[in-house]
Amino acid sequence: MTSPGGIRILGIDPGTAATGYGVVARRSHRDVSLVECGVIRTSAGEPLATRIREIYLEVEALIERHRPYVVAVESVFQGKNARSALTLGHARGAILLAAALRDLPIAEYAPREIKSAVVGTGNATKDQVGFMVKQQLRLKEAPTPHDAADGVAAALCHCLVGSFPR
Amino acid sequence: MTSPGGIRILGIDPGTAATGYGVVARRSHRDVSLVECGVIRTSAGEPLATRIREIYLEVEALIERHRPYVVAVESVFQGKNARSALTLGHARGAILLAAALRDLPIAEYAPREIKSAVVGTGNATKDQVGFMVKQQLRLKEAPTPHDAADGVAAALCHCLVGSFPR
Repeated sequence: MTSPGGIRILGIDPGTAATGYGVVARRSHRDVSLVECGVIRTSAGEPLATRIREIYLEVEALIERHRPYVVAVESVFQGKNARSALTLGHARGAILLAAALRDLPIAEYAPREIKSAVVGTGNATKDQVGFMVKQQLRLKEAPTPHDAADGVAAALCHCLVGSFPR
Repeated sequence: MTSPGGIRILGIDPGTAATGYGVVARRSHRDVSLVECGVIRTSAGEPLATRIREIYLEVEALIERHRPYVVAVESVFQGKNARSALTLGHARGAILLAAALRDLPIAEYAPREIKSAVVGTGNATKDQVGFMVKQQLRLKEAPTPHDAADGVAAALCHCLVGSFPR
């Protein structure tokens, strides 16, 4: 399962307009590095089916490129209304499908779990998450925008609390 | 676009536990017949990713089998809470993706529109929908369960109010 570059973990923070992602390589408990991060953006002017297709195809391309061992997905949410929850569900469904159709394990983490694992408190701000992602991955700056940092944080969370082959 | 058996329309009533579907063949405005209908069931005990994968694969198989000209999908919903809306969104996303990844046009109809087109009133009961589906497609009995009839009604709605090639 391990490769010279380490095991790769794809972390995703789902959103209809902006889905953040981060790929990290884990060689050991103490040796984790950032491979790639970014944001998949879709236009509100497009039909929902077109938008989730874009998200699906981009996640599929990330999986093809990095062959992750697991996909860590943030498990929304709290306090949104039913309409926005329905829309977000479509986007999240596209992400889970991209992983499930390739038989990849999916680890779901609540936002509080991710903040708690990465920052030490479930109430951490977005800036605190960005700062700790930067520290733990020895980056010069925190990943931007916040969505990208949140995707990396999901991957990092799995590195910290998930299980791995010996 | 037309074939000897007519243009096929796949209608879908999305649900996480039960997704109803119906395939109708339209040879003319007055000549529409039922080809197949049924329900895709998933188990609440399975992870959500597994359930939406099943829905996706079954819809994909229906598309492969019937080569529909369009997919008519019921556009939920009213009055559900955010959590159930999120879950339903995942299932609906899987259905839209199965169509969008094959470049199939998607027609979305609100439940009221479907009832209005098929029964003549947006407040029709499930029994009334079943009865009118039976009448219009000259069936011996209404499709069962209701989910299957609702899938057929979505397809029938598109036959009645959608646009078609000459």
